[in-house]
Amino acid sequence: MHPTTGKGRLLVSGKDGPGIVAVVSGILTGHGANIVSLDQHSTDHEGGRFFQRAVFHLDELAARRDALEVDLHRELGERFGLRWSLVDTATPKRVALFASKLDHCLLDLLWRHRRGELPMDIAHVVSNHTDLAWVSERFDVPFTHIPVEKGRKQEAEAAQLDLLKGTVDVVVLARYMQILSGDFLAAAGVPVINIHHSFLPAFVGAAPYRKAKERGVKLVGATAHFVTEDLDEGPIIEQDVVRVSHTDSTEDLVRRGADVERLVLARAVQAFCEDRIMRDGTTTVVF
Amino acid sequence: MHPTTGKGRLLVSGKDGPGIVAVVSGILTGHGANIVSLDQHSTDHEGGRFFQRAVFHLDELAARRDALEVDLHRELGERFGLRWSLVDTATPKRVALFASKLDHCLLDLLWRHRRGELPMDIAHVVSNHTDLAWVSERFDVPFTHIPVEKGRKQEAEAAQLDLLKGTVDVVVLARYMQILSGDFLAAAGVPVINIHHSFLPAFVGAAPYRKAKERGVKLVGATAHFVTEDLDEGPIIEQDVVRVSHTDSTEDLVRRGADVERLVLARAVQAFCEDRIMRDGTTTVVF
Amino acid sequence: MHPTTGKGRLLVSGKDGPGIVAVVSGILTGHGANIVSLDQHSTDHEGGRFFQRAVFHLDELAARRDALEVDLHRELGERFGLRWSLVDTATPKRVALFASKLDHCLLDLLWRHRRGELPMDIAHVVSNHTDLAWVSERFDVPFTHIPVEKGRKQEAEAAQLDLLKGTVDVVVLARYMQILSGDFLAAAGVPVINIHHSFLPAFVGAAPYRKAKERGVKLVGATAHFVTEDLDEGPIIEQDVVRVSHTDSTEDLVRRGADVERLVLARAVQAFCEDRIMRDGTTTVVF
Amino acid sequence: MHPTTGKGRLLVSGKDGPGIVAVVSGILTGHGANIVSLDQHSTDHEGGRFFQRAVFHLDELAARRDALEVDLHRELGERFGLRWSLVDTATPKRVALFASKLDHCLLDLLWRHRRGELPMDIAHVVSNHTDLAWVSERFDVPFTHIPVEKGRKQEAEAAQLDLLKGTVDVVVLARYMQILSGDFLAAAGVPVINIHHSFLPAFVGAAPYRKAKERGVKLVGATAHFVTEDLDEGPIIEQDVVRVSHTDSTEDLVRRGADVERLVLARAVQAFCEDRIMRDGTTTVVF
Repeated sequence: MHPTTGKGRLLVSGKDGPGIVAVVSGILTGHGANIVSLDQHSTDHEGGRFFQRAVFHLDELAARRDALEVDLHRELGERFGLRWSLVDTATPKRVALFASKLDHCLLDLLWRHRRGELPMDIAHVVSNHTDLAWVSERFDVPFTHIPVEKGRKQEAEAAQLDLLKGTVDVVVLARYMQILSGDFLAAAGVPVINIHHSFLPAFVGAAPYRKAKERGVKLVGATAHFVTEDLDEGPIIEQDVVRVSHTDSTEDLVRRGADVERLVLARAVQAFCEDRIMRDGTTTVVF
Repeated sequence: MHPTTGKGRLLVSGKDGPGIVAVVSGILTGHGANIVSLDQHSTDHEGGRFFQRAVFHLDELAARRDALEVDLHRELGERFGLRWSLVDTATPKRVALFASKLDHCLLDLLWRHRRGELPMDIAHVVSNHTDLAWVSERFDVPFTHIPVEKGRKQEAEAAQLDLLKGTVDVVVLARYMQILSGDFLAAAGVPVINIHHSFLPAFVGAAPYRKAKERGVKLVGATAHFVTEDLDEGPIIEQDVVRVSHTDSTEDLVRRGADVERLVLARAVQAFCEDRIMRDGTTTVVF
Repeated sequence: MHPTTGKGRLLVSGKDGPGIVAVVSGILTGHGANIVSLDQHSTDHEGGRFFQRAVFHLDELAARRDALEVDLHRELGERFGLRWSLVDTATPKRVALFASKLDHCLLDLLWRHRRGELPMDIAHVVSNHTDLAWVSERFDVPFTHIPVEKGRKQEAEAAQLDLLKGTVDVVVLARYMQILSGDFLAAAGVPVINIHHSFLPAFVGAAPYRKAKERGVKLVGATAHFVTEDLDEGPIIEQDVVRVSHTDSTEDLVRRGADVERLVLARAVQAFCEDRIMRDGTTTVVF
Repeated sequence: MHPTTGKGRLLVSGKDGPGIVAVVSGILTGHGANIVSLDQHSTDHEGGRFFQRAVFHLDELAARRDALEVDLHRELGERFGLRWSLVDTATPKRVALFASKLDHCLLDLLWRHRRGELPMDIAHVVSNHTDLAWVSERFDVPFTHIPVEKGRKQEAEAAQLDLLKGTVDVVVLARYMQILSGDFLAAAGVPVINIHHSFLPAFVGAAPYRKAKERGVKLVGATAHFVTEDLDEGPIIEQDVVRVSHTDSTEDLVRRGADVERLVLARAVQAFCEDRIMRDGTTTVVF
């Protein structure tokens, strides 16, 4: 289905030290790879943390992958104690999209996916409601309705985990209006990306547009972030804002905000699918 | 000093009711004024609050002002119970600028003033330090050094009030790093505009750029607001943001933020000097 | 289908003169209307052009409309020689959407329409291809395929005019890739709004994203404008831009540009449907 | 004057080929340098052009520089046929600022320089007028008045070249209102950066704000670019825009535009001083 493109990405992170870039590029070149782009960030030139993303071309990447990994393991893992991962861009990320009743983020992601903006396979659309089944159907992606009844969230999460098991690389909450438990996050074993309908850390929690209206703010925003147990506190991936004024009602803010939400979430998902996001404690490096 | 321009502004606010616009425009026209622009906002079409700003031309405005005010008082004040004020644009706002050591906001306001962007007279530059005396001198505006010694803020504020008494229409805090007491605000009797170096209500208080860095935000902002006793809670006048990334250090955020701060504060001061801002409880109407 | 809301808009334009605002608001108030918002713009306070948009509440507007129009005709039309129009907001604008193969603008408008952002009735979706029939079907709006064969545009335009005749208030070109003739524009008798995929007047004509890439621009934009016989020269309604860099290929620019195109076109259509746009020669007043 | 920081930048560009990154990083590491950040861009993975900027730490860089350059010359210059340059960040760029009567760009650059934003030495401020002498004086930078009399531009340019000879790395036109001849550009032998007061390629040439007003645009912009003989056609470095409306007069556009001009020029100068700009034919790579 996904023919080999001969294009790979190498991600490296860990404690900074002299010579890492030379070692990484030396290994890639030694195996015949041609580095197309390379981004590197050190938080501090002494004792900081090191982050690198390299994109390279290598004919017959699939066949040569094992040999390359042996060297990466020895040099990066054992010698420098770094984390690394090798990605064949022929293998798109497998994504589960969670939604509830609001359609703008889901519709936008499915539309972008179909037009080829987002290098991902949509494994599942999951919803606690049936309102958005038509959207999935229209875009030919499987829709699973898992209701979340009051007091029975644990059962719903069990059903979700059953579905996700081994089939996805990331869960994207496209305005999914349920809070996921810490147990779910631990068991899922993959990153979960959320779109919060405000400019975090302003207006955490519910009803941010109403709060923004009451506060008289002149801009409303949206924040895409990784989900952690501390609600609304996960590492921020992307943010943007839109200008509003006293003439906008709370409903107007909701509508204008929706434009920012879908744009910010789409940018975050694209960055994830292109392996541009690296977590750095409570924050992120986004190449 | 300021010749009559024959241009005036009429500001009206209060409880909404039918016919107010017709009455206001009828009075102006009846006195020979030609309305150049008119902005009106009602918070709700039934029982809401009414805000209006009209700009008009009227030859010999100074001479005709008394007669006009008699009618405004009777029709708007007595009949409709509205607040109103009549402004001759020939009379610029009298402004006191408070600063400490950081020069960017002060320099920017003085520069804009000199090039004719801001219709104001700068009555005083007041500082608790002497670092910025040269800026005032360079732009030919009076500089007063009022130190604020630890534990003796009351005396400093008394000196400030003495200076301001009857000489200003607004106090602008151009990165003035002292908190003004409620007593000062009450005694000053004029609005006080502050620039907060963050996107309120995110990162209230001190060191917002450091907090923003730690939180991994992708935008940093600034907020101009009226000062109230509740620090960082006054009605918001203007806000803006600038994009940042993981490559920016806290110092970089401070520098980028300074560009937003001076722009946002300048816009707020301009709006004030042009009578575009009307307070509406905890928020503002900015025409 | 559209119950009377008792809410109307009055649009007035023409040669400026003293007393117009008072007369307009006097008539409205005299008929029992309560003005909710009023925007007015004069290009020059002496001998300029006058533009006004008033929104008002008036119970039983439909029943009282005739009487109101008699006064407006006499006072505004005959006395001041102004153009005016009275709109009952219960009557949404009737819109024809023209598209070709690209779906982003069409999909976005249909989606915004369904969620209640755009006060319009979609009378027709017209396309010279069948690719987008599914979109119309999905959103339950009538789709008409009118192919435009080489050398036979005149016949196609005749068929389009036949369809539009008396059924629409505006034609919106949602990335319709055919140039409409001057004859069509004259015969249509309604405004035609286009989205040009560049920041006009830069990059007029075809392939603007390729030209932008070659020119090394750091922002790409989109422009919504009224269509006139002079291609790409009609009055501009709305514009916006998005940041790009050397890492973006022409294809990336096309994708990023699509986000701006749909946003800018949606804003222009919304402004039109809310009667916020008034033409002023080669430019526009957008309240 | 500038103590050794032990921090260097290596810039490499030319025809792309396999292994360049590994060779570059290998040389740096071999000489004991620790790479802090590395940006690389290839225009095409086969037969494209290669651009790289590496920032590194190397104790006693000044002492080790010669040895490092020998290797760079052999490996990059001779083996790969690449252009390269090695920069010690302890040596700031030497800059000449050209201005005429408008102060906003000059003042902004001098102010940013003094607060430490711009790693440069200002060798000269040159003007064809004396209006801005005070600004230079205030910021303690040498001001040279070189009048440009009608028909005697050649003499003025000779005087300018005399002054610049061997003393600057770049000339920045901070709203300098004279067109520099091709002979000047050739003789100067250093890049010349200009700020054009419009969003190029829209509104080339004079009076762009008046043209923008007539055209009814909703955004006005500014463009920083390298100066070439084809006026307004040089490679674009940076651009930005600001929103305007029908209420803004041409004078208002000039004022709002000035805010964008000084910001865009400052960003371009900063990028130059940090060696982030690499020319790529008619365009630029800005890391």
